[in-house]
Amino acid sequence: MRSIGVWLVGARGSVATTAVVGAAAVGSGTLPARGCVTEAPDFPGDLPHLGDLVFGGHDIVETPLRKRAEQLSEAGVVPRALPALLAREIDAAEAEIRPGYVPGGETQQAAAERLAADITGFRDRHGLARVVVVNVSSTEAPAEVPFDRLADLEAALAAGRDVLPGSSLYAYAAFRAGCGYVEFTPSPGPTPPALDELARREGVPYAGRDGKTGETLVKSALAPMFGGRALRVHSWSGINLLGGGDGATLADPAARASKTVSKERAVTGILGGDVDGQTHIDYVPDLGEWKTAWDHVTFEGFLGVRMTMQFTWQGCDSALAAPLVLDLARLVARAHEAGRRGVLPELGYFFKDPLGTDEHDLSAQYARLRAFAAGLTAEPRR
Amino acid sequence: MRSIGVWLVGARGSVATTAVVGAAAVGSGTLPARGCVTEAPDFPGDLPHLGDLVFGGHDIVETPLRKRAEQLSEAGVVPRALPALLAREIDAAEAEIRPGYVPGGETQQAAAERLAADITGFRDRHGLARVVVVNVSSTEAPAEVPFDRLADLEAALAAGRDVLPGSSLYAYAAFRAGCGYVEFTPSPGPTPPALDELARREGVPYAGRDGKTGETLVKSALAPMFGGRALRVHSWSGINLLGGGDGATLADPAARASKTVSKERAVTGILGGDVDGQTHIDYVPDLGEWKTAWDHVTFEGFLGVRMTMQFTWQGCDSALAAPLVLDLARLVARAHEAGRRGVLPELGYFFKDPLGTDEHDLSAQYARLRAFAAGLTAEPRR
Amino acid sequence: MRSIGVWLVGARGSVATTAVVGAAAVGSGTLPARGCVTEAPDFPGDLPHLGDLVFGGHDIVETPLRKRAEQLSEAGVVPRALPALLAREIDAAEAEIRPGYVPGGETQQAAAERLAADITGFRDRHGLARVVVVNVSSTEAPAEVPFDRLADLEAALAAGRDVLPGSSLYAYAAFRAGCGYVEFTPSPGPTPPALDELARREGVPYAGRDGKTGETLVKSALAPMFGGRALRVHSWSGINLLGGGDGATLADPAARASKTVSKERAVTGILGGDVDGQTHIDYVPDLGEWKTAWDHVTFEGFLGVRMTMQFTWQGCDSALAAPLVLDLARLVARAHEAGRRGVLPELGYFFKDPLGTDEHDLSAQYARLRAFAAGLTAEPRR
Amino acid sequence: MRSIGVWLVGARGSVATTAVVGAAAVGSGTLPARGCVTEAPDFPGDLPHLGDLVFGGHDIVETPLRKRAEQLSEAGVVPRALPALLAREIDAAEAEIRPGYVPGGETQQAAAERLAADITGFRDRHGLARVVVVNVSSTEAPAEVPFDRLADLEAALAAGRDVLPGSSLYAYAAFRAGCGYVEFTPSPGPTPPALDELARREGVPYAGRDGKTGETLVKSALAPMFGGRALRVHSWSGINLLGGGDGATLADPAARASKTVSKERAVTGILGGDVDGQTHIDYVPDLGEWKTAWDHVTFEGFLGVRMTMQFTWQGCDSALAAPLVLDLARLVARAHEAGRRGVLPELGYFFKDPLGTDEHDLSAQYARLRAFAAGLTAEPRR
Ligand SMILES: NC(=O)c1ccc[n+]([C@@H]2O[C@H](COP(=O)([O-])OP(=O)(O)OC[C@H]3O[C@@H](n4cnc5c(N)ncnc54)[C@H](O)[C@@H]3O)[C@@H](O)[C@H]2O)c1
Ligand SMILES: NC(=O)c1ccc[n+]([C@@H]2O[C@H](COP(=O)([O-])OP(=O)(O)OC[C@H]3O[C@@H](n4cnc5c(N)ncnc54)[C@H](O)[C@@H]3O)[C@@H](O)[C@H]2O)c1
Ligand SMILES: NC(=O)c1ccc[n+]([C@@H]2O[C@H](COP(=O)([O-])OP(=O)(O)OC[C@H]3O[C@@H](n4cnc5c(N)ncnc54)[C@H](O)[C@@H]3O)[C@@H](O)[C@H]2O)c1
Ligand SMILES: NC(=O)c1ccc[n+]([C@@H]2O[C@H](COP(=O)([O-])OP(=O)(O)OC[C@H]3O[C@@H](n4cnc5c(N)ncnc54)[C@H](O)[C@@H]3O)[C@@H](O)[C@H]2O)c1
Ligand code: NA
Ligand code: NA
Repeated sequence: MRSIGVWLVGARGSVATTAVVGAAAVGSGTLPARGCVTEAPDFPGDLPHLGDLVFGGHDIVETPLRKRAEQLSEAGVVPRALPALLAREIDAAEAEIRPGYVPGGETQQAAAERLAADITGFRDRHGLARVVVVNVSSTEAPAEVPFDRLADLEAALAAGRDVLPGSSLYAYAAFRAGCGYVEFTPSPGPTPPALDELARREGVPYAGRDGKTGETLVKSALAPMFGGRALRVHSWSGINLLGGGDGATLADPAARASKTVSKERAVTGILGGDVDGQTHIDYVPDLGEWKTAWDHVTFEGFLGVRMTMQFTWQGCDSALAAPLVLDLARLVARAHEAGRRGVLPELGYFFKDPLGTDEHDLSAQYARLRAFAAGLTAEPRR
Repeated sequence: MRSIGVWLVGARGSVATTAVVGAAAVGSGTLPARGCVTEAPDFPGDLPHLGDLVFGGHDIVETPLRKRAEQLSEAGVVPRALPALLAREIDAAEAEIRPGYVPGGETQQAAAERLAADITGFRDRHGLARVVVVNVSSTEAPAEVPFDRLADLEAALAAGRDVLPGSSLYAYAAFRAGCGYVEFTPSPGPTPPALDELARREGVPYAGRDGKTGETLVKSALAPMFGGRALRVHSWSGINLLGGGDGATLADPAARASKTVSKERAVTGILGGDVDGQTHIDYVPDLGEWKTAWDHVTFEGFLGVRMTMQFTWQGCDSALAAPLVLDLARLVARAHEAGRRGVLPELGYFFKDPLGTDEHDLSAQYARLRAFAAGLTAEPRR
Repeated sequence: MRSIGVWLVGARGSVATTAVVGAAAVGSGTLPARGCVTEAPDFPGDLPHLGDLVFGGHDIVETPLRKRAEQLSEAGVVPRALPALLAREIDAAEAEIRPGYVPGGETQQAAAERLAADITGFRDRHGLARVVVVNVSSTEAPAEVPFDRLADLEAALAAGRDVLPGSSLYAYAAFRAGCGYVEFTPSPGPTPPALDELARREGVPYAGRDGKTGETLVKSALAPMFGGRALRVHSWSGINLLGGGDGATLADPAARASKTVSKERAVTGILGGDVDGQTHIDYVPDLGEWKTAWDHVTFEGFLGVRMTMQFTWQGCDSALAAPLVLDLARLVARAHEAGRRGVLPELGYFFKDPLGTDEHDLSAQYARLRAFAAGLTAEPRR
Repeated sequence: MRSIGVWLVGARGSVATTAVVGAAAVGSGTLPARGCVTEAPDFPGDLPHLGDLVFGGHDIVETPLRKRAEQLSEAGVVPRALPALLAREIDAAEAEIRPGYVPGGETQQAAAERLAADITGFRDRHGLARVVVVNVSSTEAPAEVPFDRLADLEAALAAGRDVLPGSSLYAYAAFRAGCGYVEFTPSPGPTPPALDELARREGVPYAGRDGKTGETLVKSALAPMFGGRALRVHSWSGINLLGGGDGATLADPAARASKTVSKERAVTGILGGDVDGQTHIDYVPDLGEWKTAWDHVTFEGFLGVRMTMQFTWQGCDSALAAPLVLDLARLVARAHEAGRRGVLPELGYFFKDPLGTDEHDLSAQYARLRAFAAGLTAEPRR
C-alpha cells in the first residue's frame, strides 16, 4: 500500500504541529495511540498505518515547526523528550510547508493554481497514493458565497474576482488537485454548493465541519440522556475559556460568531428547538493551550419539578484535536480510494456542525462511523 | 383491556407516594408525562394507560399517604394543589396498603403466605388482569442467600427457618402470587438463583435492580464518550449528598454498601476494570428530597496529556424515580402478558445494576429497550 | 422612639415585596431574622426595631402587592402561609404606593416636586421620625449628568429641561424632602456631584451602590485570600444566569452594562488592576427568582505553578437583598438621626460599588460597618 | 546578621524538596517570591533573607534530593531548568540530611539524643544563629501521650520506654537542642503538655499545626462571609482527591483520621458547632502532586430560603506549602531571637488547626500575623 499524504492548511498551528509530532510518536511505537478513534482495539476497518503518513501544508507565518513543537512541549501538550527525539520527522514536514493564501497578494484564480500545484508537487515528490487536505488554520468570520453553481463561480474567478472566503479557496484548490478535504474549523470551506458540485465532478470526498473536541462533545453525549428519559431541557448555557492561538483568534467577535453557531447546534439538533441559553467564548491568555468549559442545564421532570446539571470540562484542545485530524485524514483517504465522492455524512461523529446530516447524537454518530469503517474494508481499492 | 395493578413494597415512601400521586395527575391529563420514558411522543409500543393503574402495597409504618403527599408538596416535589385535588386517588391507594414484613414477628413461611394473599386479594377485589410488585422500600444491607436451588430454599422455609433477606421474601411472595416483580432498590430481591428458578416455574418475569436516576445515569451516558474517543479514563471519583428517608437509611454503612456497589459498576462495566476512584454517599438532612452528586474524572489523551471533567447533578430523586416505577410496572405487565418469564435484561436501561446483562452503555440500553417495547406490540396478549 | 419610614422606589418589585413581607414576618417574631446583618446576636448598636418600620413607595406598574407576594410564594421565596397571614401589613404598604416617574409624562421639575410631596405626605400621615428612600427599581443604563454644581442643575430643571437619569431624580426628590437615600441598584442615583452637594446642604446622608448579594460578595471574600497568600491572580472570569424581573431587565445590554461594571470592580479593587477575565450576565427565564453564578480563577503560586479555583453560587436574589434593604434603611435612619450628612462610606459592606471608599475587602468592610454601628449608639439622637 | 538554619523532618519529601529548591530560586532572584506571605510588597517586618537560609534534615528514605527535584520537575511543580541550575544548593542540603527515627531501632531516649546531636552539629558546622525544625514528614495516626508533666515523660524515656509518637519525639529533640519548632503536619508533634513545658523551660517558641493550603484555606476565607451576613450554614461537605506521597500516606485510614479532624475544625470554629457534613480524603494516584477539593455548602437566608454554594479548588500542594514553610521558619527564628517562648498563636494564619488559639477566620488571622510581624521588628535581637 502506497503512503498517504496529509496536507495541513495552518501547518504551523498548534493542532497541526501536535498532529505531526504525534503521528511520528505513535507511528514509531514510542507512545500509545490514546485519543485516536480508529486505533481503539475493537475499531473495525483497515486504515493506512499512522507511520505511513507524510505531512506537508500551507501557513502564512514562518515560525519553524521545531520551535512550535518546543512551545507545545513547554505548554505541557507534547512530552519533553519528543521534539528532540523526532527532529527528523519534524524537519521532513517543515521541508514541505509552503506559503499560504493571504487576500490581496494575488488573484484567487492565481492563488488556487499555486496552492493546487503545491499539493500535486508534494504528492508527486513522495509518490503518494493520495493526499487529503485538512484545514486547521485560524477560524474565519462567517461569509456568504454568492454563487450556487460551479460554472458561475469559475467564471467569476476567471474574471479575476476574489469571491471565496480563504477556507473555500483552499477547498477549491484541494478538489482541483484531486484531493479529499476535511474542514476541521468552523469556516465555510467546502460548504458552498458550487464546491460540492466540484467535489462530485472531480470524484473526491470531503467532510466537516469544526472538530468536536470539548464542550460540544459532552453536549452530544449528554443531551440524548435527557431526551430518552423524557426530561424537558429548558435551558443550556455555556461558557468557554481558552488561551492559545485559537483563543486569540476567537477574541475577535467575527471569528467567534462562526464558532458559537457551530456550538449551539448540538443541543437543539438533538432535543428540538426551544432550548434557552447562550454560549460564550472568552479569551483567557493564562490558560495557554488549555480550555475550560462550564455548562449549566436546567430541566424539568415528573410533576414539573425543576432540576439542574452542571459540568466543567478541562481539556487540552490540541491534544484532543490532533488525533482526530489523523483519524479523518485516513478515513477520507480510504473513502476516496473506495470511490466515494462528495460529502461524507458518516463522519459526523467528529464534528460540531456535521455536513450532510442532522444527526448530533454522539452514540448514533459513533455507530454510523463504525458501520462506515467496517464497510470500507469490504470495498475494493482503486 | 383490563386494568393493571401496581403493588408497591414501601408504599408509604417518597418514591411510592410520588408514583401514586403522579399517575393520577398524569393519567387524568392534569400534568404532562415528563420523565416517563414510555410516554415520550416517539416511544414505540402500546402500554396500559397510566390512568388505568390501580395501586396498593406493603409498608411497615402507618403515616397516612395524604400526609406523605403533603410532606412531598412542602418539599417541592409535588405541586401544591395536587394532594387536595387527587385526594380520592390517594385514598384509594391508602385503602390498599397492608402491613409489611418485619423480621421476627412471624416465620418467613407464614409471612410469604400472608404477603402473597394480600396481593391476590388486591387482584381479585379490583378484577385486575395482572399485578406487578415493585420494591421501593428502604435499602437493605448486602446479604447472602445460602440456597441455590428452590427445593432447598422451600425446605428451609417449611422448616420454619428465616433464610431470606426481606426484599427476597417479597420477591418470593410476588412470584408465588403469580406476579411480575421489579427490584427498584439495590437490595437482593429476586437475585438468588432459587428465586429465578421460581419465577421461571411460575411463568412470571422480573427486572432489576436499583433504579438509575442520577449520578449513575450520567456516568452511563458519559463513559461511552471516553471509550469511543479512545481517551483512557484513569479515575472516576464521586460523592452523593442526599437527605430524605433514603438518605437517612443510607447513613447506615451496611445499607450504603449495597448502593455503592451498584453505583460503581457502570464505569468499569463500560470502560473496563482498572479505573481508580471511590463513590461516597453522605446523608445531609438539609437537602430534603434533593440529591447533589459531584463526579470528577481524570483521563489521558494523545501523547499522554492529562485532562479532567467534573459534573454536578442536582436532582429530585423521587421525581426522577417515580415515573420509572410507572414505566417499569407497565413494561413488566406487558411482558408478562406476552408470555415472558424470568429475568428481563431488556429493561437494563432503568437500572444501575442491570440483571441479566452486562450492558451499561446508556444508548445501547435505550436502543434495546425500544426494540423490546416495539416487539411487545407484536406479541399476542394472553 | 418614633417609627421609621422606608420608601421603596420600585415598590412592587421582588426585592421590595420581599422586604415588606419579611419585615412583617420577622418583626412579629413569626420567623427568625436570617440574612439580616444588623440582627445577628453579636452585632453592635441599637437600631429601630424591624416591626416599627412603615412602608410606602413609588412604582410604575400596578400589580397588587398581594399578588406579587403570592407570586414570590409560588417561586419559593416567601413561605406559603405568609401572604395570607400578613395580609394586613401588605395592604398597609399597598395603600402607600404612588405612581413613579416615567420620562416624558411631566417635566422633571414637576416630577421632583410630586415625588417629594408623596414622601413628605407619607411621613406626616404616619408621624414618622424620618423616612429613608431606597431605590430598588429596575436598573437603568449608564448615564452622564452634565452638571457638577447644584446651582447649574437646578437652573436646568427650573428651565423645564429633563437632565437627570430616573434614579437621580428620585435621589433629588428624596434629598429635597429631607430624607436619607440608599442606592441599592447600579443606577447613577445620588452619584452626580450636584446631588452630593444637595445632600450635604439638606443635612441628609446617603449610601450606595448596587447591593452585594451573590457573585461579588463571594469575590470580595475570596480575593483577599489570594492577596494575603501572595498568590498572583491572572484571570477571574464569571457568568451569571438569572431569571426574574431583574434578569429580564438585564437582558437589555444597556442595563447590563451598569451591572457588569459594578461587578468587575471588586477583584481589581482588592488585587490591583491587571487581572484578565470578563463577567457575563445571561437571562435564563427558567431560573425564576434564582441566580446561578459560576466563577473561574487562575492564579500562580511558588515557582510559577498555575492553579485554578471555581465556584458555583446558587442564590435567591430577593431573599439575599431584602434583609439588606432593611439593614440599610435602619442604619441610614440612625446615621441621619446622629447628624451624619453626605455619603456614608462605612456602609460599603453592602455594596458592589461602594460610594465614598475604595475598600472592597469584605472583612475590612465588615469591621468598618461594626465600628460605625457601635459608634452610632454613642451618638445623641437629634 | 548570621544565617538561619531550617531543619526539615521529612527532608526528602515533596514539600521539603520544593522548599529547598524554591528558597534557592527565589533567594538568588531567579524567580519572584509568589506564594511567600512575608515577601509580599506591603508585608511588615524584617525577616532573614531567603537566600541566607541553610537547609538540612532527617528522613527515613534515601532517594537523592536531586532525583526528587527531577521528579517534581516532571510533575510540573518545579520548572524544568531549576534542578540543574540549582544543583549546588540541592547538594548542599543533601549533604546535611541524616537518618530519621524509625520506631524499634533504638530507644526513644537514644533517638532523641541522636536527633538533637544531628541538629546541633548542623548549627555548629554552619555557625548558624539559630535553627528552626519544621516537621514535613508523613502524617501519623492520632495518638495519646500519657504524660502531662515533663518530669513524668522524661522519667519514662530514661527508663527506656517508647512513649512518644514520632513527631513528638522530633519536637522533643528540637527543644532539647534549643531550637524553635513548626508542626506543619496534623501529627501530634509539640502538642503534649509535657512538651509545651519543655519549650518554655528551654526558652524556645513553636507553632502549628497542619499547614493550611487548600480546602481549609478557602473555608476559612468563606465561612466568615456567611457569618457576617447572618446566613445560617446547615451543612458543609467536602471531598479531597489527591495523589503524591501525601495521598499515598492518607490512603491509610489512621493517618487520614488526623487530617480529617484538622480540616473539620475551621467551619465550626468560625460558625459554631451544629454544621452537618463530612470531609473525605481519597487517594487518586493519577493526580500526582495535584489536589482537587470540592466543597458543597447549604445555607439558609431570609424567610428560610435555602441556597447552596460549591467550589472546586485545584492546587499543587507542594507549591502552596513550601513557601509557607519558608515563611514559618523565618518568623519562628525571628520570634526566638526576640525572646518568645512556648506556643505562638499569632501564626494561626498558616494552620488548619492553629495551636494556642481558637481563631479560624482567615482575615482575623492575617491581621494578627501582620501585627505580630510588625511588632517583631521593634524587638531587640538577642
Ligand atoms: N483544537 C481544537 O480542539 C479544535 C477543535 C475544533 C476546531 N479547531 C480549529 O482548528 C483551527 C486551528 O486551531 P489551533 O489551535 O491549531 O490554532 P492556531 O492559532 O495555533 O493555528 C492556526 C494556524 O493557522 C495559520 N493560518 C492563519 N491564516 C492562515 C491562512 N490564510 N492560510 C494558512 N494558514 C493560516 C496560522 O498562522 C496558525 O499557524 C482553528 O480554526 C480552530 O478553531 C480546533
Ligand atoms: N429515588 C430514587 O431516585 C431511587 C433510585 C434508586 C433506588 N431507589 C431506592 O428506592 C427505595 C425507596 O426510596 P425512597 O426515597 O422512597 O425512600 P423512603 O425512605 O422515603 O421510603 C421507603 C419506604 O419503605 C418502607 N419500608 C421500610 N422497610 C420496609 C419493609 N420491610 N417492608 C415494607 N416497607 C418497608 C419505609 O417505611 C418507607 O415508607 C430506596 O431503597 C432507594 O434506595 C430510589
Ligand atoms: N436582588 C438582588 O440581589 C439585587 C442585588 C443588587 C441590586 N439589585 C437591584 O435591585 C433592583 C430590583 O431588583 P428586583 O429583583 O426587585 O427587580 P424587579 O424587576 O422585580 O423590580 C423592579 C421594580 O421596579 C419598578 N420600576 C421600574 N422602573 C421604575 C421607575 N421608573 N420608577 C419606579 N419603579 C420602577 C418595576 O415596575 C418593578 O416593580 C434591580 O435594579 C436590581 O438590579 C438587586
Ligand atoms: N503539601 C501541603 O499542602 C500540605 C499541607 C498541610 C500539611 N502537609 C503535610 O506535610 C507533610 C509532607 O507532605 P509531602 O507532600 O511532602 O509528603 P511526602 O510523602 O512527599 O513526604 C514525606 C517525607 O517524610 C518522610 N518520612 C516519613 N516518615 C518519616 C520519619 N519517621 N522521619 C523522617 N522522615 C520521615 C518520607 O520518607 C518522605 O520523604 C505531610 O504530613 C502532609 O500531610 C502538607
Ligand atoms: Na448538519
Ligand atoms: Na468606591
